[in-house]
Amino acid sequence: MKATVLVRPKPGILDPQGEAVESSLRQLGFAVAEARVGRVVDVDVEATDPVEARVQLERMCEQLLANPLIESYEIELVG
Amino acid sequence: MKATVLVRPKPGILDPQGEAVESSLRQLGFAVAEARVGRVVDVDVEATDPVEARVQLERMCEQLLANPLIESYEIELVG
Repeated sequence: MKATVLVRPKPGILDPQGEAVESSLRQLGFAVAEARVGRVVDVDVEATDPVEARVQLERMCEQLLANPLIESYEIELVG
Repeated sequence: MKATVLVRPKPGILDPQGEAVESSLRQLGFAVAEARVGRVVDVDVEATDPVEARVQLERMCEQLLANPLIESYEIELVG
Protein backbone atom coordinates (compact mmCIF):
# COMPACT_ATOMS: atom_id res chain seq x y z
CA MET A 1 0.00 0.00 0.00
CA LYS A 2 1.44 3.36 -1.05
CA ALA A 3 1.35 6.42 1.17
CA THR A 4 2.49 10.01 1.05
CA VAL A 5 3.71 11.59 4.27
CA LEU A 6 4.04 15.37 4.50
CA VAL A 7 6.35 16.68 7.23
CA ARG A 8 6.27 20.41 7.92
CA PRO A 9 7.80 22.77 10.49
CA LYS A 10 5.13 23.59 13.10
CA PRO A 11 3.71 27.13 13.09
CA GLY A 12 6.00 29.46 15.04
CA ILE A 13 9.04 27.23 14.55
CA LEU A 14 11.89 29.01 12.75
CA ASP A 15 12.27 27.77 9.15
CA PRO A 16 15.52 29.11 7.65
CA GLN A 17 15.03 27.13 4.42
CA GLY A 18 11.58 28.67 3.97
CA GLU A 19 12.97 32.13 4.63
CA ALA A 20 15.67 31.60 2.02
CA VAL A 21 13.11 30.42 -0.54
CA GLU A 22 10.85 33.38 0.26
CA SER A 23 13.63 35.91 -0.18
CA SER A 24 14.88 34.26 -3.39
CA LEU A 25 11.35 34.26 -4.85
CA ARG A 26 11.07 38.00 -4.09
CA GLN A 27 14.44 38.66 -5.70
CA LEU A 28 13.17 36.86 -8.80
CA GLY A 29 10.22 39.27 -8.87
CA PHE A 30 7.47 37.06 -7.45
CA ALA A 31 4.91 38.58 -5.07
CA VAL A 32 4.80 36.10 -2.18
CA ALA A 33 3.69 36.62 1.40
CA GLU A 34 5.32 33.55 2.95
CA ALA A 35 7.07 30.31 2.11
CA ARG A 36 7.64 27.29 4.38
CA VAL A 37 9.65 24.23 3.41
CA GLY A 38 9.13 20.67 4.61
CA ARG A 39 9.63 17.13 3.32
CA VAL A 40 7.47 14.74 1.38
CA VAL A 41 8.15 11.04 1.90
CA ASP A 42 6.51 8.50 -0.41
CA VAL A 43 6.53 5.12 1.32
CA ASP A 44 5.40 1.78 -0.03
CA VAL A 45 4.25 -0.15 3.05
CA GLU A 46 3.83 -3.91 2.89
CA ALA A 47 0.65 -3.86 5.04
CA THR A 48 -2.44 -4.29 2.83
CA ASP A 49 -5.05 -3.26 5.41
CA PRO A 50 -5.48 0.56 5.44
CA VAL A 51 -5.99 0.71 9.22
CA GLU A 52 -2.85 -1.35 9.87
CA ALA A 53 -0.90 0.68 7.26
CA ARG A 54 -1.86 3.94 8.98
CA VAL A 55 -0.79 2.56 12.40
CA GLN A 56 2.59 1.59 10.91
CA LEU A 57 3.01 4.98 9.20
CA GLU A 58 2.23 6.86 12.41
CA ARG A 59 4.93 4.86 14.19
CA MET A 60 7.38 5.61 11.34
CA CYS A 61 6.66 9.32 11.71
CA GLU A 62 7.12 9.31 15.48
CA GLN A 63 10.32 7.26 15.30
CA LEU A 64 12.09 8.48 12.17
CA LEU A 65 10.29 10.58 9.57
CA ALA A 66 9.41 13.59 11.72
CA ASN A 67 10.66 15.30 14.84
CA PRO A 68 7.34 15.61 16.73
CA LEU A 69 8.71 18.45 18.90
CA ILE A 70 9.11 20.84 15.99
CA GLU A 71 7.38 19.19 13.03
CA SER A 72 3.84 18.13 12.23
CA TYR A 73 3.01 15.30 9.87
CA GLU A 74 0.12 14.36 7.63
CA ILE A 75 -0.44 10.84 6.25
CA GLU A 76 -2.31 10.21 2.99
CA LEU A 77 -2.91 6.65 1.86
CA VAL A 78 -2.72 6.47 -1.93
CA GLY A 79 -3.91 2.88 -2.47
CA MET B 1 -3.84 32.53 -2.21
CA LYS B 2 -2.14 29.58 -0.51
CA ALA B 3 -0.59 26.74 -2.44
CA THR B 4 1.26 23.53 -1.69
CA VAL B 5 4.01 22.49 -4.09
CA LEU B 6 5.33 18.92 -3.98
CA VAL B 7 8.77 18.39 -5.51
CA ARG B 8 9.90 14.80 -5.99
CA PRO B 9 12.85 13.04 -7.60
CA LYS B 10 11.72 11.72 -11.02
CA PRO B 11 11.36 7.93 -11.37
CA GLY B 12 14.73 6.36 -12.16
CA ILE B 13 16.67 9.25 -10.63
CA LEU B 14 18.92 8.13 -7.77
CA ASP B 15 17.54 9.24 -4.38
CA PRO B 16 20.16 8.69 -1.66
CA GLN B 17 17.98 10.32 1.01
CA GLY B 18 15.13 7.94 0.16
CA GLU B 19 17.49 4.96 0.28
CA ALA B 20 18.73 6.02 3.71
CA VAL B 21 15.15 6.39 5.00
CA GLU B 22 14.21 3.00 3.53
CA SER B 23 17.14 1.23 5.14
CA SER B 24 16.57 2.98 8.51
CA LEU B 25 12.88 2.02 8.45
CA ARG B 26 13.84 -1.63 7.84
CA GLN B 27 16.39 -1.52 10.67
CA LEU B 28 13.59 -0.25 12.94
CA GLY B 29 11.56 -3.33 11.97
CA PHE B 30 9.10 -1.81 9.48
CA ALA B 31 8.16 -3.80 6.36
CA VAL B 32 8.58 -1.28 3.53
CA ALA B 33 9.12 -1.87 -0.17
CA GLU B 34 10.39 1.59 -1.10
CA ALA B 35 10.81 5.12 0.18
CA ARG B 36 11.45 8.30 -1.83
CA VAL B 37 12.08 11.72 -0.30
CA GLY B 38 11.21 15.09 -1.80
CA ARG B 39 10.27 18.57 -0.61
CA VAL B 40 6.97 20.23 0.20
CA VAL B 41 6.87 24.02 -0.20
CA ASP B 42 3.87 25.94 1.14
CA VAL B 43 3.71 29.29 -0.62
CA ASP B 44 1.35 32.18 0.02
CA VAL B 45 1.07 33.91 -3.38
CA GLU B 46 -0.33 37.43 -3.57
CA ALA B 47 -2.28 36.69 -6.79
CA THR B 48 -5.99 36.21 -6.00
CA ASP B 49 -7.03 34.69 -9.35
CA PRO B 50 -6.45 30.90 -9.32
CA VAL B 51 -5.38 30.82 -12.99
CA GLU B 52 -2.86 33.62 -12.47
CA ALA B 53 -1.65 32.04 -9.21
CA ARG B 54 -1.01 28.73 -11.00
CA VAL B 55 0.95 30.49 -13.78
CA GLN B 56 3.11 32.21 -11.15
CA LEU B 57 3.65 28.95 -9.25
CA GLU B 58 4.69 27.11 -12.39
CA ARG B 59 7.28 29.81 -13.07
CA MET B 60 8.52 29.57 -9.47
CA CYS B 61 8.94 25.80 -9.89
CA GLU B 62 10.83 26.14 -13.17
CA GLN B 63 13.09 28.91 -11.85
CA LEU B 64 13.72 28.01 -8.22
CA LEU B 65 11.65 25.39 -6.43
CA ALA B 66 12.47 22.37 -8.59
CA ASN B 67 15.24 21.20 -10.88
CA PRO B 68 13.11 20.16 -13.88
CA LEU B 69 15.87 17.88 -15.20
CA ILE B 70 15.69 15.50 -12.26
CA GLU B 71 12.60 16.52 -10.30
CA SER B 72 8.88 16.60 -11.01
CA TYR B 73 6.51 19.01 -9.30
CA GLU B 74 2.84 19.08 -8.43
CA ILE B 75 0.92 22.27 -7.57
CA GLU B 76 -2.17 22.23 -5.33
CA LEU B 77 -4.04 25.48 -4.71
CA VAL B 78 -5.39 25.50 -1.17
CA GLY B 79 -7.56 28.63 -1.31
